[in-house]
Amino acid sequence: MKRQSPSYSLTVRLRYPDKAGQLGRITSAIGETEGMIGSVDIVEVRKDVIIRDITFNARDVEHGEHIVERLHSMPGVEVLRVSDRTYRLHLGGKIEVQAKIPIKNRDDLSMVYTPGVARVCRSIYNDPDAAFTLTIRRNMVAVVTDGTAVLGLGDIGPRAALPVMEGKAMLFKEFGGVDAFPICLDTKDTEKIIETVAFLAPTFGGINLEDISSPRCVEIEERLTERLDIPVFHDDQHGTAIVVLAALENALKVVRKEMKDIRVVVCGAGAAGQAIVRLLQAVGVGPIVVCDRQGALNKARNTADNPVKQWLIAHTNPEQVAGTIGAAMQGADAFIGVASANLITVEDIKRMAPQPIVFALANPDPEIDPDLAASCAAVVASGRSDYANQINNVLCFPGLFRGMFDVRARRVAQEMKIAAARAIAGVIEPKELTADYIIPSVFDRRVAPAVAKAVAKAAHESGVAHREHKPGFKISP
Amino acid sequence: MKRQSPSYSLTVRLRYPDKAGQLGRITSAIGETEGMIGSVDIVEVRKDVIIRDITFNARDVEHGEHIVERLHSMPGVEVLRVSDRTYRLHLGGKIEVQAKIPIKNRDDLSMVYTPGVARVCRSIYNDPDAAFTLTIRRNMVAVVTDGTAVLGLGDIGPRAALPVMEGKAMLFKEFGGVDAFPICLDTKDTEKIIETVAFLAPTFGGINLEDISSPRCVEIEERLTERLDIPVFHDDQHGTAIVVLAALENALKVVRKEMKDIRVVVCGAGAAGQAIVRLLQAVGVGPIVVCDRQGALNKARNTADNPVKQWLIAHTNPEQVAGTIGAAMQGADAFIGVASANLITVEDIKRMAPQPIVFALANPDPEIDPDLAASCAAVVASGRSDYANQINNVLCFPGLFRGMFDVRARRVAQEMKIAAARAIAGVIEPKELTADYIIPSVFDRRVAPAVAKAVAKAAHESGVAHREHKPGFKISP
Repeated sequence: MKRQSPSYSLTVRLRYPDKAGQLGRITSAIGETEGMIGSVDIVEVRKDVIIRDITFNARDVEHGEHIVERLHSMPGVEVLRVSDRTYRLHLGGKIEVQAKIPIKNRDDLSMVYTPGVARVCRSIYNDPDAAFTLTIRRNMVAVVTDGTAVLGLGDIGPRAALPVMEGKAMLFKEFGGVDAFPICLDTKDTEKIIETVAFLAPTFGGINLEDISSPRCVEIEERLTERLDIPVFHDDQHGTAIVVLAALENALKVVRKEMKDIRVVVCGAGAAGQAIVRLLQAVGVGPIVVCDRQGALNKARNTADNPVKQWLIAHTNPEQVAGTIGAAMQGADAFIGVASANLITVEDIKRMAPQPIVFALANPDPEIDPDLAASCAAVVASGRSDYANQINNVLCFPGLFRGMFDVRARRVAQEMKIAAARAIAGVIEPKELTADYIIPSVFDRRVAPAVAKAVAKAAHESGVAHREHKPGFKISP
Repeated sequence: MKRQSPSYSLTVRLRYPDKAGQLGRITSAIGETEGMIGSVDIVEVRKDVIIRDITFNARDVEHGEHIVERLHSMPGVEVLRVSDRTYRLHLGGKIEVQAKIPIKNRDDLSMVYTPGVARVCRSIYNDPDAAFTLTIRRNMVAVVTDGTAVLGLGDIGPRAALPVMEGKAMLFKEFGGVDAFPICLDTKDTEKIIETVAFLAPTFGGINLEDISSPRCVEIEERLTERLDIPVFHDDQHGTAIVVLAALENALKVVRKEMKDIRVVVCGAGAAGQAIVRLLQAVGVGPIVVCDRQGALNKARNTADNPVKQWLIAHTNPEQVAGTIGAAMQGADAFIGVASANLITVEDIKRMAPQPIVFALANPDPEIDPDLAASCAAVVASGRSDYANQINNVLCFPGLFRGMFDVRARRVAQEMKIAAARAIAGVIEPKELTADYIIPSVFDRRVAPAVAKAVAKAAHESGVAHREHKPGFKISP
């Protein structure tokens, strides 16, 4: 049964006779229909009549409608308006562009715009790197999507994807102090996306690719990384992989196993699965078997049309395990699902090695119900906020870009991803670690600064950090 | 002689013996070299030694260096640092992206991001117009350039153009409450620019083209207007034309002439010249002769390679005037220059009809020095802030987009441009009008609201306004 959620928070405006007991009957009706009441406010009191706003959380849209219907059917109660808090928050969009300096008089204008700005332009013309000091490139990331793989919604297109990208931009600023702007592209053509992002690059210090369907996203990221001198990062691949690595490192401490000794099943043979495999192999994990819906990927499988699966077959499953997902899980120490709902069972987990680790990350519905998994696994994590151990990319991307911008990293080296994962994991002290606390909360304010610092250091060590370009305060450009 | 300008504001940090009369000698030295002293601050006082910051305005870079050299040569005075206020204001860029709502807890997160945002996405997927209510499209304009015709600097490229576009974004917000984001494109190819802007459109409610060289800018604007369902506006063309029309309407009231009776010379056969011609003809002006560097455009001229000039030849100069700019000005009532420095003389103005109007708008150096022009013209305007009657596009674009966004205009109809011009002109009461006050100050806060209101009304009358789409507060999308 789904829980009531603030993302289905409704405010109903009710008019009813101002008689003793009436409010109690209304709140009881909401309670009986399992709405979770929040605030109760008076809007207006007239002779014998009262108007109130009552806010409650429902489970989902249908549940909310059911509660409103119940109120509607109460004698004497009029439903004047039903307002949905989530929609209200979205009115006019969730982000805005602000000037850092006011323009209140002619002196201000002559410095931030003509004629003064011309000198700054000339400085950048003479030294293009100066743009990373004297313009928004210093701190601005493009959040780029084509809207083909948005949340669990699939290919909803660039227009409908915009609210997600705005939310992402909010998170960049809130947690990383990074300016981010949504770019929702009205094309699904790989070549056109690459070209468009390359044309846009002069405004940005980094590119965050988002919710682009696999396998195109892999090629887009690789080709843009080659073409541009700013970091390009596909969050759905590497953000997920980084947080998975962080959680796995801490989970292994809980079950007292070593990375090199474990056998891993990754369920999901898309871009995220590939990124997880790459990152786990970079830290020396034991054998990995990757499964898609048809079961274990091995050399017997025909995957001619899918370069990601071909790569996975070439780089995993040394023992050429075959069969269903459940069969592949036989004797595995960790299961990492980035696929879809209800793909594994309790019996599958029971087939794993002792002290099994289960990360069921499909969103919104995991590969197995986390409560069910917890009945037989030693450590369970999911993508959901309503269970322990939420694997959420928000733990990574704000701090990652903060760190990269601080040292003007040219690209995202593998060492920087590992450093980010270890910084996330390291926020939890070894003595605090438990099966229910392997990964910090997304609201743990220590995470982003720790990630930023570790990433900046790793960027320097990897040789991808530019030395900070100081403006120099020269009179002449 | 150029005047001292806050856009060349320097702060020098000086260390010198703390003796009576020393500060006076320093400020005298700055005064003798014609620096205009602003603030004088103490940084530190040690035994017998004092460190001060002295801020002064110079005329230009060389003048600033000259003053610093003079300070440097003073016995006992050490110049510790020279800091340029314009550069300081540009550090890290001039705009930022801000969340409108904080994300402080899980409830906030679940509404602005997953899972709540998914419902908003679905609403837009089912009704793409809802994006104009529920996302930043409601109020966001792209300021798009390829950096080919930036200020008076020419083709400095997209990276060096960014500070200008950031400044433009600041002005949009400050004066019109419009969110604006710079898009500096790393291509000069007309087809690529059109395609890229079309791909970007889902994020934006309007497109402001900026500093794209002529004649490409004309085709880019026309083709994007055809292709997109949001307004596309090339400010260098139509913003200039609108403010010119506003100024000309008021100037004609000062000299008591009628639009239909006047003869006009437009100097500058590029996109701005064409836009001015179009707009003046739309309000029924008398005959126009357009000149380029070689003189009057007429059917005898070979302009096969330039579609803008071909259009101008087909639509102006009914009497087929030929010869130099000066010759074309013979008997003209108004001269409108949008070309380059020092193209006309006092003698040319003397050849005009009685009570001549001279708009010398080339930037930064006008077609004739405004003071010189004022010696023989009845009304003079320029693009400069240091003379009376500054023709500045800032008077138009913030209010224009404010008005268009308020009614969700599909495109910029000619009637909306005329309405904007009349709103700008109308801010000055007839009884306030003088030869030195035909156009409001860019800091006149009445201008943008007046323009917005007039543009919204004209958009409705032209049939290009969508009815405001209300969010409806439906529970189910």
